[in-house]
Amino acid sequence: MSTKPKLFSPGPVDVAKETYEAMCSPTIGHRGKDFEELYASVQPGLQQIAQSSRPVYLNTASAWGAMEGSLRNLTRKKVLNLCCGAFSDKWYDVSLRCGKEADKLQVEWGEAITPELVRNKLSEGGFDTVTLVHNETSTGVLNPLTEIVKAIREFDDIMIIVDTVSSFSAVPINYDELGVDVLLCGVQKALALPPGISLMIVSEAALERAKELPDRGYYFDFHEFEKNHAKNNTPSTPAIPHIYGLRERVEFMLAEGMETRFARHEATNQLTNDWLLKHGFVNFAPKDYQSKSLTCIKNNLEIDVPGFVKAVRTKHNFLINGGYGKIKGSTFRISNMGNETIETQQELLAALDDVIPEFL
Amino acid sequence: MSTKPKLFSPGPVDVAKETYEAMCSPTIGHRGKDFEELYASVQPGLQQIAQSSRPVYLNTASAWGAMEGSLRNLTRKKVLNLCCGAFSDKWYDVSLRCGKEADKLQVEWGEAITPELVRNKLSEGGFDTVTLVHNETSTGVLNPLTEIVKAIREFDDIMIIVDTVSSFSAVPINYDELGVDVLLCGVQKALALPPGISLMIVSEAALERAKELPDRGYYFDFHEFEKNHAKNNTPSTPAIPHIYGLRERVEFMLAEGMETRFARHEATNQLTNDWLLKHGFVNFAPKDYQSKSLTCIKNNLEIDVPGFVKAVRTKHNFLINGGYGKIKGSTFRISNMGNETIETQQELLAALDDVIPEFL
Repeated sequence: MSTKPKLFSPGPVDVAKETYEAMCSPTIGHRGKDFEELYASVQPGLQQIAQSSRPVYLNTASAWGAMEGSLRNLTRKKVLNLCCGAFSDKWYDVSLRCGKEADKLQVEWGEAITPELVRNKLSEGGFDTVTLVHNETSTGVLNPLTEIVKAIREFDDIMIIVDTVSSFSAVPINYDELGVDVLLCGVQKALALPPGISLMIVSEAALERAKELPDRGYYFDFHEFEKNHAKNNTPSTPAIPHIYGLRERVEFMLAEGMETRFARHEATNQLTNDWLLKHGFVNFAPKDYQSKSLTCIKNNLEIDVPGFVKAVRTKHNFLINGGYGKIKGSTFRISNMGNETIETQQELLAALDDVIPEFL
Repeated sequence: MSTKPKLFSPGPVDVAKETYEAMCSPTIGHRGKDFEELYASVQPGLQQIAQSSRPVYLNTASAWGAMEGSLRNLTRKKVLNLCCGAFSDKWYDVSLRCGKEADKLQVEWGEAITPELVRNKLSEGGFDTVTLVHNETSTGVLNPLTEIVKAIREFDDIMIIVDTVSSFSAVPINYDELGVDVLLCGVQKALALPPGISLMIVSEAALERAKELPDRGYYFDFHEFEKNHAKNNTPSTPAIPHIYGLRERVEFMLAEGMETRFARHEATNQLTNDWLLKHGFVNFAPKDYQSKSLTCIKNNLEIDVPGFVKAVRTKHNFLINGGYGKIKGSTFRISNMGNETIETQQELLAALDDVIPEFL
């Protein structure tokens, strides 16, 4: 048996035995009916989960591929990157590396992007694309998506790309009502698959815009995804095991019911918050903007974070995370994404209770 | 139990039970020591298989991602695409879609690229990149790699990108001796993993050239791969199950021995060739340029190819392929890539023997 720890880090998360079993279904030819059936079988469920009348493209790349690809499909003038943590900040850097003109709206790590800030920045003019990370996994900040989208829509001709990597299927997202142009996510977060693919929902308007970008390439070309979707297929060779696994998870989610699922994430997240308050810690994210899928905890008690993380692993075989990037050590993170229940989250927190006294 | 057919199509191919078991190893955090150990564990073996002193990058994308990414890293002036079938032809199209200036050297499908043709074309001048598909999977043509590389090296300042998608680990390739700049391959062909990732070996010269391309992006950026390789990691979240599977396959290959492996592919390929000759078919590829990992058979007997493929599947649960692109129906293809042995290849051919009389 493996001694690998159970993951309570904010992605990848623990993967169910049933998911692995599904992933081991026999490999099939990806240009034939067997694959078309598999592809078609996941679409209605994914669309229901995202409340999307548009298809859900299956992208054989992790989320940064979708994030870069979206820029290459959409930014012809200038992109505004909304930056509030490691991943949203990096998107600005990636924009420049794609040869795009880019500017950023930067807030302090641990703060949220507000509609007012976005409105002010866009008033400078010249932008045709905005990128937003819904749930900034490095800081545990859940940005006010609906309000930000409304603020952006006061301006004309702007494509909105939203990364829901660590919020998709953990909190309600209604693609059709929201009215963004690209919604993308990974699968190793709340969807609880192993990493390897990403999902993209792309608006009709985004397909129109993409036509204006002749150098958008092939691998992430929205039009290739759309064209192949019509044949229940993908532009490039797909990661078949992941799509089998996705089918199993989609069935699981629909059986669970999305409202129940959201409530479960809310409840397990509340447990983590209760735990940190009990010990005198502070949530790194502001009260109204706290992620429901993971918790970034400010190390205001100045414990030895690496030592704590190591002790939790050694003694209980659970992996929590010691903070990311420039807030490594001054924060630590606990995930409640994916398959965790009240019971399993309590198991983790009991383990933390057991270990923490020697660090306080 | 599944009724999915055993694959003898030229990728994806049949995957061993042991590979699937390895892929189900517990998911691990990809920014910690567990993943670094996994990454490091596959490098020496992969380098030995490719006879490469350079690292083997693990790319979370199927091969078209590596093929497009290589262009974005290397082509600053003009690329010459050597075209001899569906996949090599498509690379020219992809070059244009990346906004690159591109020209092609086109031979008829079923013919090989020759050094003379390449030399003549490059004499026109202006090229700084050449793309070559070593084993053109659509036509079963194995291009004379060493001779073509020598011809290209008569010209200065040209980056050579070689797709070995369906030849890597089936025929000898010595990266260091060959002296190409990018060698790339998928994993669902001779490596016998399910699809989902690709491998890239990139020369020091290619890293130098990439510095000249500020819009090369992030996801496929050679420098990001190199920088992360130094830490036994990947730029973006990796497909962890595939890397576990790759480790299992690398161990398998080294235990088998590469010479034995090449001989096994040669022998199983010979069986297929004996079969087609016995029935009066013709190999679609010219005598000296026939693939050793798959066989593209000319339908000179004008059988009903879709009917034949279907009957083989229905009666024996084996999947062979009915031809690709514009030669669909006028050719059909049989793979011997991956884990097939004399015995399993004979099983397939006996099944074909059983079915073919009613189609002749």
